[in-house]
Amino acid sequence: MLAGDPVLVDVVPAAQAIPTLGEHTILHAGPPIEWARMCGPMRGAVMGIAVFEGWAPDLATAGSMADGGEFSFHPNHHFNAVGPMTGLTTLSQPVLVVENRTFGNRAYCTINEGLGKVMRFGGNDKEVLDRLAWLRDVLGPAMGATLREMGGMALKSTVAQGLTMGDEMHQRNVACSGLTLRELAPVMAGNANDSAALAEMLTFIGGNHQFFLNIAMALGKALMDPVRDIDGSSVVTAMSRNGTDFGIRVSGTGDTWFVAPVEQPEGLYFPGFTEADANPDMGDSTIIETIGLGGFAMAAAPAVAGFVGAGSASEAANFTRAMGEITVAENPEWTIPALDYQGVPAAIDIRLVVETGRTPTINTGIAHREQGVGQVGAGVVRAPMDCFEQALVSFAESLGVA
Amino acid sequence: MLAGDPVLVDVVPAAQAIPTLGEHTILHAGPPIEWARMCGPMRGAVMGIAVFEGWAPDLATAGSMADGGEFSFHPNHHFNAVGPMTGLTTLSQPVLVVENRTFGNRAYCTINEGLGKVMRFGGNDKEVLDRLAWLRDVLGPAMGATLREMGGMALKSTVAQGLTMGDEMHQRNVACSGLTLRELAPVMAGNANDSAALAEMLTFIGGNHQFFLNIAMALGKALMDPVRDIDGSSVVTAMSRNGTDFGIRVSGTGDTWFVAPVEQPEGLYFPGFTEADANPDMGDSTIIETIGLGGFAMAAAPAVAGFVGAGSASEAANFTRAMGEITVAENPEWTIPALDYQGVPAAIDIRLVVETGRTPTINTGIAHREQGVGQVGAGVVRAPMDCFEQALVSFAESLGVA
Repeated sequence: MLAGDPVLVDVVPAAQAIPTLGEHTILHAGPPIEWARMCGPMRGAVMGIAVFEGWAPDLATAGSMADGGEFSFHPNHHFNAVGPMTGLTTLSQPVLVVENRTFGNRAYCTINEGLGKVMRFGGNDKEVLDRLAWLRDVLGPAMGATLREMGGMALKSTVAQGLTMGDEMHQRNVACSGLTLRELAPVMAGNANDSAALAEMLTFIGGNHQFFLNIAMALGKALMDPVRDIDGSSVVTAMSRNGTDFGIRVSGTGDTWFVAPVEQPEGLYFPGFTEADANPDMGDSTIIETIGLGGFAMAAAPAVAGFVGAGSASEAANFTRAMGEITVAENPEWTIPALDYQGVPAAIDIRLVVETGRTPTINTGIAHREQGVGQVGAGVVRAPMDCFEQALVSFAESLGVA
Repeated sequence: MLAGDPVLVDVVPAAQAIPTLGEHTILHAGPPIEWARMCGPMRGAVMGIAVFEGWAPDLATAGSMADGGEFSFHPNHHFNAVGPMTGLTTLSQPVLVVENRTFGNRAYCTINEGLGKVMRFGGNDKEVLDRLAWLRDVLGPAMGATLREMGGMALKSTVAQGLTMGDEMHQRNVACSGLTLRELAPVMAGNANDSAALAEMLTFIGGNHQFFLNIAMALGKALMDPVRDIDGSSVVTAMSRNGTDFGIRVSGTGDTWFVAPVEQPEGLYFPGFTEADANPDMGDSTIIETIGLGGFAMAAAPAVAGFVGAGSASEAANFTRAMGEITVAENPEWTIPALDYQGVPAAIDIRLVVETGRTPTINTGIAHREQGVGQVGAGVVRAPMDCFEQALVSFAESLGVA
C-alpha cells in the first residue's frame, strides 16, 4: 500500500477503460444492490443517466424500464472503478485513469461535476445532463490529450503538498484542485485552438474546490487494489456505501463484501435543510479513508472539522490520533505539519477495530433523501461495527482459528 | 489598518503609475542610501537595470556612470511603492497596482521574477534582463488587461484563504499564488490570441511559488499608507532594509526614518553556500510583517518554520504568540486555524517593542553578498532594537513627554 506510485495518466470514455461495460449496464457506488432497495438519490441518478445515455426518452420511462428489470446493476468496485455519492459509471462518461506504476494496475473514476445540482447527489434535470455532455464532449477529451502529452501527473506528491495546505482530500480539496489546475493549465493552453472553450474549462476546474476529489478516489482505488487477496492479511481494502448498505472488503478474505445497514451522518446542514432531509451515508469516496486520508487526516484540515461539525480546529487532531489506534502504520510520505510531520494513519486492521471498539471516522457530503434535490450538508459518519465483526469471524474461519 | 480593502486592480508601466519617475532615476528597497554605501547585490542590480533601461551599453559602463553620480536614487517608499530584496523600480518596468478601496490610495510593486538568477537578488546577466523584458512586453500587459476586465481581484479574502492553506505570505506563497492563477487564468485564456504565449504565461505564474509575494507587498503598502501621520499613534507604518541599513517609520512621527545597521539573518543555506556568502538583510518585503503576516503569522505556516531554520512545526506558534506581545490588535479577518482561528497579531507598537525587549521577527530570503550570484538561503532576522529606541525618543519628544 505504501509502495504504490499512483499517476493520473489519461481521461477516456468509460467503455474504453472498461471494455465489458455495455448498453443498459450501470455501475454504482457501494456493495451490490438491486433497484428495489436503492435510495431516492440513487434512483434519481439512475433515471437521469439512462436518459443521458439515450436508453430512455425521459425520466419517467427510465423509471419504468428500471422497474421492469431492463438495467443491469453492478458495483464500481467490481470493475476497478469508484464513484462519489451515487457514483454511477456508464459507457459514454469520461473517466479519469490512475495507474499505479509500482504494480501496473489501473483504476477509474468519473470527473467531478462541481457543486449545486449534480448527478452524484441524485440530480437529473437538463442542467445536470447538459453538464455531463460537456464533460464527455469537451473537458474529458481535452484533459485526456493534456495528460498524455504531459506523460501523466504524479499524485503522491500532490497529496503530500495538499496535506501541508489544509486538505484532507475528502471534504476539502482546495489546495490539490489548485495544484492540479497549475499543472494542467499551461499544457491545455498550448493545445487550445478555441480560447472561449479553454476559458470555460479553466473556469470549471478553477471554480470547483472538489475537482481533485474524484482524482483522489481513483488514486485510492489504484493504491488499494494490489493489497487485495494477501493470505492472512486483516487489512481493509475497501469501504463503500450505496445509500442503503455499508460494505467493507478485507485483504485476507478476498472479494467478499461484509455488509451492514448504513448509518446517518451527523453534521451541519445548508440553510433550509435539516436532518429530516438527509439520505443515509453514500458513495465509494470512503476509499479516501481507506488510504488514511479524509477523516483519518482531519488534523491536517482544521477547516474541515468546522465544516463537518466535528468541533474546533484544535480538536481536529483527536480524530487523527484515534484512527492511529485502528491502523497498523503511519505513511512516511504523507505527513501532517500540525502533528510535527507525523504520517497519516494507514492500513485499517479489522482486529484493531473490533478490539478497540473504534470504527473508522468518515468525512462525507450529505445528499437529500429524495431524487433530484442534491447536496444538503456535510458531516461525519462512522462505519458500522457489524461489518468489521462479520469480517473478523470470516477471517478467523479462513485461518482455522474461529 | 484593519478597515482597509486592498484590491489588485491593474498592471501598468512604472512611469505611468509614478509620473515623476524619470530617466536615470532608480527607486530601491529600504531607507535612503547612496551608491557608495550600497551592498554588492544592490550594486549588481543597479548596473543591470541601467542596461535594461538602455541608459548604459554594458554593466561596466553602468558601474562607471553610478560612480560618476549619474543616477538619482530614492526609496520606493517615497513613491507609494515597495520592492523585494534589492527592490529596484524604474520607469519601464511593469508594476502591480493595488488600490485600497476604503481610503482610495494606491501602492505599487514590480512583478515577481521567479526563482533562480533574478535581479532582486543582484542578478544582472542576459537571462535576468531577458526575463525583465518579457515581463514588460508580454506578461505585464496581459495581466493588466485581465485585471481591468475582471474589475480587479480582492486580496483580503485571498490572504485569509492562504492563511488556512499554510502560507504566511513572506517565505511561503504557494497557496495564494495558486489562488491567483485560478482567478486570472480563465480570463487570460478568454483574451488570448496566441496559445503559445498564453501557455508560457500560465507556466511562469504556475511555476513560481512566490508569485504572490510582490502582490502581498503592494497590498501591505496600500494598507499601511493610510495609517501614516496619525497624531499620537505609536504604530509602525513601515519596516524596510536596503542591505546596509534597517529603517522604520512610525505613524505619529510622520515620514522620518529611524535607521540602524541591518542584521544578518540566521537560517538555512542552499547546498554549496554558507553564512560567509550571505548578504545582510535586504528588501521592502518587511512590509509583510508590518501588517501581521510573515514571521508574525508563522503559526499558519509550519512548513516555513522548517524552511527558515526556526525549529519544528509545533514551535511555529511560539513566534506568533511572541509577536502578540508587541502588537495592539488581532486581525479578525486574517485568522490561523492551528490557533483555533485567533487573528494574526497586527499593528506593531514601538512602546511595546521597547518595553518587552522583543523586536519583530522577519522571515526573509538571503542573497549572496556579491553581485550577480542570487539567493543562497532563507532565514529569520530581527529588526534592530536601536530603530525602535530612536523612534520612541522622537515620538516622546513630539508629544512633549521626553
